[in-house]
Amino acid sequence: MDHWWINGKPGSLIEVTDRGFAYGDGLFETVAVRGGRPRFLAHHLDRLFDGCRRLRIPAPAREPLQTAVTTAVSDLPHGTLKLMVTRGTGPRGYQLPEFPATTVLWGTMASDPVRSVPVEIRWCDTMTSVNPATAGLKTLGRLDQVLARAEWSRTDVAEGLMTTTDGHLIGGTASNVFLVSGDHLQTPSVARAGIAGVMRRVVIDAARSAGIPVAVGDVPPFQVQAASEIFVTNALTGIRPVHRLGSQVWAPGPVTRRLQKALAAAGVTECGG
Amino acid sequence: MDHWWINGKPGSLIEVTDRGFAYGDGLFETVAVRGGRPRFLAHHLDRLFDGCRRLRIPAPAREPLQTAVTTAVSDLPHGTLKLMVTRGTGPRGYQLPEFPATTVLWGTMASDPVRSVPVEIRWCDTMTSVNPATAGLKTLGRLDQVLARAEWSRTDVAEGLMTTTDGHLIGGTASNVFLVSGDHLQTPSVARAGIAGVMRRVVIDAARSAGIPVAVGDVPPFQVQAASEIFVTNALTGIRPVHRLGSQVWAPGPVTRRLQKALAAAGVTECGG
Repeated sequence: MDHWWINGKPGSLIEVTDRGFAYGDGLFETVAVRGGRPRFLAHHLDRLFDGCRRLRIPAPAREPLQTAVTTAVSDLPHGTLKLMVTRGTGPRGYQLPEFPATTVLWGTMASDPVRSVPVEIRWCDTMTSVNPATAGLKTLGRLDQVLARAEWSRTDVAEGLMTTTDGHLIGGTASNVFLVSGDHLQTPSVARAGIAGVMRRVVIDAARSAGIPVAVGDVPPFQVQAASEIFVTNALTGIRPVHRLGSQVWAPGPVTRRLQKALAAAGVTECGG
Repeated sequence: MDHWWINGKPGSLIEVTDRGFAYGDGLFETVAVRGGRPRFLAHHLDRLFDGCRRLRIPAPAREPLQTAVTTAVSDLPHGTLKLMVTRGTGPRGYQLPEFPATTVLWGTMASDPVRSVPVEIRWCDTMTSVNPATAGLKTLGRLDQVLARAEWSRTDVAEGLMTTTDGHLIGGTASNVFLVSGDHLQTPSVARAGIAGVMRRVVIDAARSAGIPVAVGDVPPFQVQAASEIFVTNALTGIRPVHRLGSQVWAPGPVTRRLQKALAAAGVTECGG
């Protein structure tokens, strides 16, 4: 059973005039809850508050929010915390409300533990929009990803890779992607499109700590073929090695294994051996 | 006072798990109500149902919806009907719900009549995302336009022109744009970005009926400078001639005047002389 709180009060109904609903004018975070604790909450709040600043949404106070959501999940052994912030209700029209009152809401959902096993992925035809104004942020407008995810229904295909409308590899519908090329790790920049995933940040930090160089930049889609290892990351599933994409197969590789171990040590239990 | 109906029942609260709120997974229409009648409702429904088909949202039955919203506005002398369709509630995640139940809602808002006088406009720095998957549709994800509209607060600037992330003129934050170049009318294609505005369609039809050639295609931003006339269109305001953009000024021109007269005759009273 899911539980929701809106502006600190239990409830799951919002006004249709809330700009989050009307215009996708808001942000969200999907936080893994493990052992009654919100994992990497500081990273999630960093991204959320950075988003508020960039979108000029008056941010809630960080400390009380952190305390409230931590309390909300304390009885949840394993599941997900969804945290959302919108620009609140307002009159019709794109213009910012004169007196904005941010809506803050969160929900908790139980789930079963899963192991991050190697997965099959595919390419999507639907492309990710490019826009520096919102790039990196987890805004409420996710229709590109919804349409990409709707391209397949085979349950043995775990994820679909997307390119941007200007032709770069950007990531999965709900994940970031990493390639191992030679002795270094490569992942698409999220400066012009895509989402700056929390697990992406954890992986980049772990790789650099382990002395593995990480190149962040534009990645042409054809580089996937040349990669010796490939994996996708997501806050809820950690690192998932890719074992198949179309006719290409990969065996679990040493760099992926090493990073999985580093993540398992940092609390990403689904990456444990 | 606004009035809202959700799935045919009075109310203004939706579930936070509605995919319209969670992912911008839906569409809307903003319909001018004049003399208790929804203006160009058939055009609005055409776009809405085309959107449902393209987004694979199970569409409501058209005739009952048409009847219901027509009845809802019958007591409203002058105002706006906002009509929204979402993919309904669903479990967390981008994947389409197994048993989707479309949410249909509408609201009515009174407003005062306005005349479509010449306006000053400006350029926006925020760009419009390019994506053929959603181009032309009025989806619930409108953050590009929200951020563009937030670039100015001067009340004497009526609209801001946007370019696409690949460098074409696309339109205003909440309007389509037309240029008069030589003896023909020119307006940006909405095949890769932007919205296929209802008033845009009305203007294109009126121009062609009047023997004015209309070129629909990619428009480089610099063509604005060379235009002999320029106007913006929106379902609620008809044709608004542009009299100033930066240091450039235009006098009301003959093509704009002719089209305004044609629209006034078609019921766009705000374009009347």
